[in-house]
Amino acid sequence: MRRTRMNEIIAEIRRHDEFVVIAHVHPDGDALGSAVAMYLMLKNMGKKAFVCIEGNFPKKMEIVTQYCGDFIEPSESVFPCAIALDCGDTTRLGAASPLFYAAETRIVIDHHHTNTGYGDFNLVRSYSATGLILFELMGRMGYDIDAKTANCLYVAISTDTGNFSYEATDEATLACAAKLRKAGADIPLICEVMYKNRSYPETKLTGVAIDRIELFGNGRIALTYVLQSDYDALGAVKEDCDDLINYAREIDGVEVAVFLRQIDGGKFKLSLRSRSCVDVSRIAAGFHGGGHIRAAGGTMEGTLKDCSACIVKAVMEEINK
Amino acid sequence: MRRTRMNEIIAEIRRHDEFVVIAHVHPDGDALGSAVAMYLMLKNMGKKAFVCIEGNFPKKMEIVTQYCGDFIEPSESVFPCAIALDCGDTTRLGAASPLFYAAETRIVIDHHHTNTGYGDFNLVRSYSATGLILFELMGRMGYDIDAKTANCLYVAISTDTGNFSYEATDEATLACAAKLRKAGADIPLICEVMYKNRSYPETKLTGVAIDRIELFGNGRIALTYVLQSDYDALGAVKEDCDDLINYAREIDGVEVAVFLRQIDGGKFKLSLRSRSCVDVSRIAAGFHGGGHIRAAGGTMEGTLKDCSACIVKAVMEEINK
Repeated sequence: MRRTRMNEIIAEIRRHDEFVVIAHVHPDGDALGSAVAMYLMLKNMGKKAFVCIEGNFPKKMEIVTQYCGDFIEPSESVFPCAIALDCGDTTRLGAASPLFYAAETRIVIDHHHTNTGYGDFNLVRSYSATGLILFELMGRMGYDIDAKTANCLYVAISTDTGNFSYEATDEATLACAAKLRKAGADIPLICEVMYKNRSYPETKLTGVAIDRIELFGNGRIALTYVLQSDYDALGAVKEDCDDLINYAREIDGVEVAVFLRQIDGGKFKLSLRSRSCVDVSRIAAGFHGGGHIRAAGGTMEGTLKDCSACIVKAVMEEINK
Repeated sequence: MRRTRMNEIIAEIRRHDEFVVIAHVHPDGDALGSAVAMYLMLKNMGKKAFVCIEGNFPKKMEIVTQYCGDFIEPSESVFPCAIALDCGDTTRLGAASPLFYAAETRIVIDHHHTNTGYGDFNLVRSYSATGLILFELMGRMGYDIDAKTANCLYVAISTDTGNFSYEATDEATLACAAKLRKAGADIPLICEVMYKNRSYPETKLTGVAIDRIELFGNGRIALTYVLQSDYDALGAVKEDCDDLINYAREIDGVEVAVFLRQIDGGKFKLSLRSRSCVDVSRIAAGFHGGGHIRAAGGTMEGTLKDCSACIVKAVMEEINK
């Protein structure tokens, strides 16, 4: 891979007048925040800019998408310059991929250390968030970060650090947050919208899932589940269960949390989380899945009762290794 | 009130050899974090130091109390110097009050703007946390903040800013967090212990309370409750309901959340939270209580059904004003 110095990227951004900004499919806060921050900088520099991202945008992300009036659909258009943000490889470009490849100059800015370097210019740094790379880039360019851009970058770095709780929350990340606050980032509003807001159905589904938590293995394993019928009964949507597993994982003494989500009558999506010593990706590998040491997933078939017994047994074996 | 410059406080700390450090009764993270941070600095300076705080220490605070081997019970002892931290007035000193008054030199360090200035030396600044004042003080003293002190100060400022989500989360707070991270603050561990850990009974009580949430006033009011019998049934303790009201408040569209906790057969403790436009302290005033604009409380008597209907009516009236 050809890695690029920041100054080369800056020269390319200065050289072009029209851009398409791309972020990864089904964007999270780092993807959308970075894309809209880049868009705002380009517009403030008097350039033409458009943003193209495949997938649904979470409603809470209106806090940044509201600043962008130029989202476009994937097409065969040719832009002088394409900038891919927060996309570790080309599959992450999704339907925006043709726009990226058609561009005369292709820039990649990303924080995933696995980035494959698929651009003409690749600015890849293992920072806590792509938004943090943009913050540094904007500083070098002498771009005076306004309140809108500050909000976008704050959403980006806050998202990818679990609102400043993950290991990656380093000095540079917090120092960046401080400067974004000074530049006008509305931290209380961002936290309220992003972390302190749930739909009524999601709240109710949370209650149901908590009610069903069972402990196994002397309290080291917590298991809960959600059935297809729950969605209809509560008016919930699929995404409403995304955070449920945390209530199981965060029980004092629990090392591994298991969450089963029914995807059809006899099939379950399996999610696993661990706290400190169990590698759940090894467990997930036994269930057509995989993932990371602390977060992994797979699929299971059978009745709820059989699947529960089977996964608890597998977790116990891994704990006792 | 006689307010004191930081340099005078520094001179007093340098001048004395033995200290009692006091923080407010039933200490939170800012009180305990600040007290133990001060203790560590004094010990590292080769001085004698003891910490006296009335009340129960939350178990999660072991993350800072573990660093202090010199907690003492309230007594009539006379120390050359007493330092009261995070106590806005003398009632907050609780049972440690005689120790404070008996001391030859009495120092107050606090961030509450209502501080009454009851010390011989009063360092009162409206910072986001008392821990932030200590951070500045330690910088001025040339104290090289070690990892233990960094953890204490991080817990202090994280607690009082809602882990960097409240309005008070200013540039200085985040810049301080960045420097504490550099000094060795174990942010992932602190967040895990303080914000991502609940007992099994607390988790179950959360499920019960969520299950009971009812919406009123076109979804602008959410009400839930916990009965005395729930505690026995779940093995829960009183404090396990402290955060429950947030699940009601954080429902999309809810402006006012109401939580009723049964304290004896026909008596309920009332808690109120609002999001953005309703002053709940005005509502609480009608129920033998008071508080802040966004958080207030009171008491009610009657059946659950009557109390619920009565408080919903009162909230509706305030909303419609």
